[in-house]
Amino acid sequence: MRVVIIGGVAGGATAAARLRRLDESAEIIVLERGNYVSYANCGLPYYVGGEITDRRRLTLQSREGFWSRYRIDVRLNSEAVAIDPARRSVTVREGGDTYELDYDKLLLSPGARTVMPPIPGIDGEHLYTLRTVDDALALRDVVERRRPREAVVVGGGFIGLEAAENLANAGVHVTLIERLNQVMTPLDYDMACSVHTYLRDKGVTLLLGRGVERFEQTPDGVLVHCDGAQVPAELAVLAMGVSPESALAQQAGLALGMRGAIAVDEFLRTSDPDIYAVGDAVEITHFVSGQKTTVPLAGPANRQGRIAADNILGRRVPYHGAQGTSILKLFDLTVAATGLNETAARQAGLAFDKVVTFSPSHATYYPGASNMTVKTLFERESGRILGAQIVGFDGVDKRIDVLATAIRAGMTGEELTELDLAYAPPYSSAKDPVNMAGYVIENVRDGTVRQFHWDEVEKLPRGSVTLLDVRSAREFAGGHIEGAVNIPLDELRDRLAELDAAKPVYVNCHSGLRSYIACRILTQRGFACFNLSGGYRFYESVLCADRFNADPAHSCGVKIEEK
Amino acid sequence: MRVVIIGGVAGGATAAARLRRLDESAEIIVLERGNYVSYANCGLPYYVGGEITDRRRLTLQSREGFWSRYRIDVRLNSEAVAIDPARRSVTVREGGDTYELDYDKLLLSPGARTVMPPIPGIDGEHLYTLRTVDDALALRDVVERRRPREAVVVGGGFIGLEAAENLANAGVHVTLIERLNQVMTPLDYDMACSVHTYLRDKGVTLLLGRGVERFEQTPDGVLVHCDGAQVPAELAVLAMGVSPESALAQQAGLALGMRGAIAVDEFLRTSDPDIYAVGDAVEITHFVSGQKTTVPLAGPANRQGRIAADNILGRRVPYHGAQGTSILKLFDLTVAATGLNETAARQAGLAFDKVVTFSPSHATYYPGASNMTVKTLFERESGRILGAQIVGFDGVDKRIDVLATAIRAGMTGEELTELDLAYAPPYSSAKDPVNMAGYVIENVRDGTVRQFHWDEVEKLPRGSVTLLDVRSAREFAGGHIEGAVNIPLDELRDRLAELDAAKPVYVNCHSGLRSYIACRILTQRGFACFNLSGGYRFYESVLCADRFNADPAHSCGVKIEEK
Repeated sequence: MRVVIIGGVAGGATAAARLRRLDESAEIIVLERGNYVSYANCGLPYYVGGEITDRRRLTLQSREGFWSRYRIDVRLNSEAVAIDPARRSVTVREGGDTYELDYDKLLLSPGARTVMPPIPGIDGEHLYTLRTVDDALALRDVVERRRPREAVVVGGGFIGLEAAENLANAGVHVTLIERLNQVMTPLDYDMACSVHTYLRDKGVTLLLGRGVERFEQTPDGVLVHCDGAQVPAELAVLAMGVSPESALAQQAGLALGMRGAIAVDEFLRTSDPDIYAVGDAVEITHFVSGQKTTVPLAGPANRQGRIAADNILGRRVPYHGAQGTSILKLFDLTVAATGLNETAARQAGLAFDKVVTFSPSHATYYPGASNMTVKTLFERESGRILGAQIVGFDGVDKRIDVLATAIRAGMTGEELTELDLAYAPPYSSAKDPVNMAGYVIENVRDGTVRQFHWDEVEKLPRGSVTLLDVRSAREFAGGHIEGAVNIPLDELRDRLAELDAAKPVYVNCHSGLRSYIACRILTQRGFACFNLSGGYRFYESVLCADRFNADPAHSCGVKIEEK
Repeated sequence: MRVVIIGGVAGGATAAARLRRLDESAEIIVLERGNYVSYANCGLPYYVGGEITDRRRLTLQSREGFWSRYRIDVRLNSEAVAIDPARRSVTVREGGDTYELDYDKLLLSPGARTVMPPIPGIDGEHLYTLRTVDDALALRDVVERRRPREAVVVGGGFIGLEAAENLANAGVHVTLIERLNQVMTPLDYDMACSVHTYLRDKGVTLLLGRGVERFEQTPDGVLVHCDGAQVPAELAVLAMGVSPESALAQQAGLALGMRGAIAVDEFLRTSDPDIYAVGDAVEITHFVSGQKTTVPLAGPANRQGRIAADNILGRRVPYHGAQGTSILKLFDLTVAATGLNETAARQAGLAFDKVVTFSPSHATYYPGASNMTVKTLFERESGRILGAQIVGFDGVDKRIDVLATAIRAGMTGEELTELDLAYAPPYSSAKDPVNMAGYVIENVRDGTVRQFHWDEVEKLPRGSVTLLDVRSAREFAGGHIEGAVNIPLDELRDRLAELDAAKPVYVNCHSGLRSYIACRILTQRGFACFNLSGGYRFYESVLCADRFNADPAHSCGVKIEEK
């Protein structure tokens, strides 16, 4: 049997190795149109910034290595230009030549390509992308050779942010331009706000809600025109997202799904029974929403590659879908998400609620603890965890993986409270941040506390409700919700007479813990009481970013809390 | 209603706060026989070593704070000396006085006490324990004042190892004496071996399998006599385990369970309907084995405290048991376990198998990756994960928590392969160490590979089997299994004729990955083939530690791989 694989990175390379391990007799041919096979795709931005210094680290696997270890015939610079499913044949272009290659089974792992919208000037000089090893080499080269002082990054997704960080680490001032009003769309806007503030603290100029209108060539580089601004730079990195590389599949008559991605069944088989497809190019089922989606990430691509190999060889192994777990290092910050955010949960028609918790990475009495903001979405009726987003420093990756596992298992918020996680002071607290999220969800679901959210604050009818801030007088003096009265928590029981029992009380503290206790006191004394989810610090982090967004020169003096 | 709580740390303190949050009208009295309430129990060793420098960090919560925030009446230096369940009354000794205190509900959170076996001289001078704040202050004081050069630690559990590390960090040479042949009994012996080697690399003298016979007072401190050795030291720390502080419960006629722990039902109620109990003193159900056990750890104690409070107030909240998830920092090493180890799985009568994997903490092309050894136990029939143990550097805490969550969810090895975990080069690999463990379990369970283990190597009948080492010639020359032949993996297909097709082949490489590929090649060519689980490095790590154990002066030159 001959298996031909189109695309030698991530899913394709994994599938090839798995095929060989399961079948010594198969002929396995990998067609890779680039110069490199199985390269470190996700490492490319770090090569640009000098974090990874040896380019050989990016291309550890060689064509020769695949042959000697796996007897896999990797053909570099070999582009599949047409598929004939009826004849089970691929037309391959290598250099100036083309040839036909028959297959018994075909696996498509073509990946995704950088979106290049028809913006005037986009095909000009000094514009870079960051998708292939050659892209990374070119960008690193210009950074080393020209020592630019100003760069523009267009796009605030993973690649754009990693490019921004790495350019900044290489000493370049970066202006990041994003069409939406936030970076990192796996996050909800409110969670992205602290990322915005952090980026600005790190010296990145952030222009949100602005589309690029035109790239203008200048003697020094490029002038980027976007709504109301012109940004001069020596180079620009274009990272406006990716789209499935499905033209070949489409030409071959294979069924496509959303966003033009290749449609596959649960066995990763396309509409042609002899053709399978994996990776960034395929449409998959979201594990949580059950809806069709694309998840252009390396983890799912690798898992799919292995499963496709199994199915090609007649094992029947279903792929149960991805949940979009993702993570980004941004200087010292870690930003991570899994499952559904509010936008996605709403699109899926789910009735959900959310909690925002603020927890230390480990016992605060042990040196080095830092805080993380955890937003957890859960289904109202069942309590099932739908998604989570975390922004913080140490230990964010751990908590997102625990929550990703809990989501995979269909756990409820109540079940999060029972997780028996590893505790010693250098690693966690006796109540881990994940347990804490569970406790708050439990309290919300069983009615022990009622919440309100940052975006409801301005809408509260000031005359007919009491806004109560239970922080200390000093904290209150440092900034508070307009119209709030201050009664520190420890004085509340003695000062209840100051509150109008006829009015509902909307309570806040710094993070939501003291105000929860206050709500318990007030509720038991007959007050209708609501706790500000995430506390004043979460509310303020959004307001601060809002002001920044409206006026990039504005500084509201809020820093996100670092270690 | 008056609730009296005996013991103001961990479970007791948590219960008190939860009680108040749920019930403003209850009278809540906490009796704490020590000087401090809700202190940082787990932080004490780090105060001794100077990692935590401010003693106030250990005792952040005060009696006054509990009153002002929670209206909880904390009575320090107040020891409950008797309980009269019939009269619902506790006899309290405070200073020279005693008084009776009636209760409606009583919660026992007495904790555990340090085991002090009747060893001659154990009540002498220069012997310390490390259980209370006063213990820590005394030990820190002697370390600062006397600047000892030599210390003995008796006991290789959590406290003993943390004490050893912290004394070493304070510049003291430590001899650690342990009665068993290994430290850290949550680990199996084979996993503990690399901890032994690491400790010795760090300058700790390790005497295993030796019980202390006598403590002899000397002019300079103490001479510790143990089987065949006499160790002079300026001080000794006794950490020979803990046992439930259940004398009071026993005197009150409450039912006790194993190891003298207080028996409770799933609602944490003792045999008396008005008395509840939580924490180190109670017998609980192990979540995985379903057997009765004690888990003297802070995480479960805190969870139990909250649940007991709920039940005391009439909510019916069951406690589903702990799974013994635990973690230890040992210099730069992290050692962690969850669920059952082999000993416990055997005791529970479970038919299990195991895999040992060796995975990088994050993408190896990104700086700072280090390797971890992961041992995962699974039930043969169902594939359900029963337990895991990890020894390594960065990222061990993350993987043990993911595995703990998977165990809680009843996941199988196959389901571990599907976990959608967060991948970016600084945090993980596209196939996370937990996914990798799952892949190997899947391969074992579906027969893709057959394993053998380090402890079977010596028993293999050398004449009738082939021992094959598929590492490079250079690796082979650096040490190999006696009698093994060396054919590097990439040459195997061309050198098959060198192998006797009639003999089963037992293959090893460094970590088990190359030998797995070799097994796949050989199996498909008709060989009966077995893969050494964990590879040569795991086998060698045990042998090395064995030689050390037999002769503490011996050095076998094996270092555990650090970053």
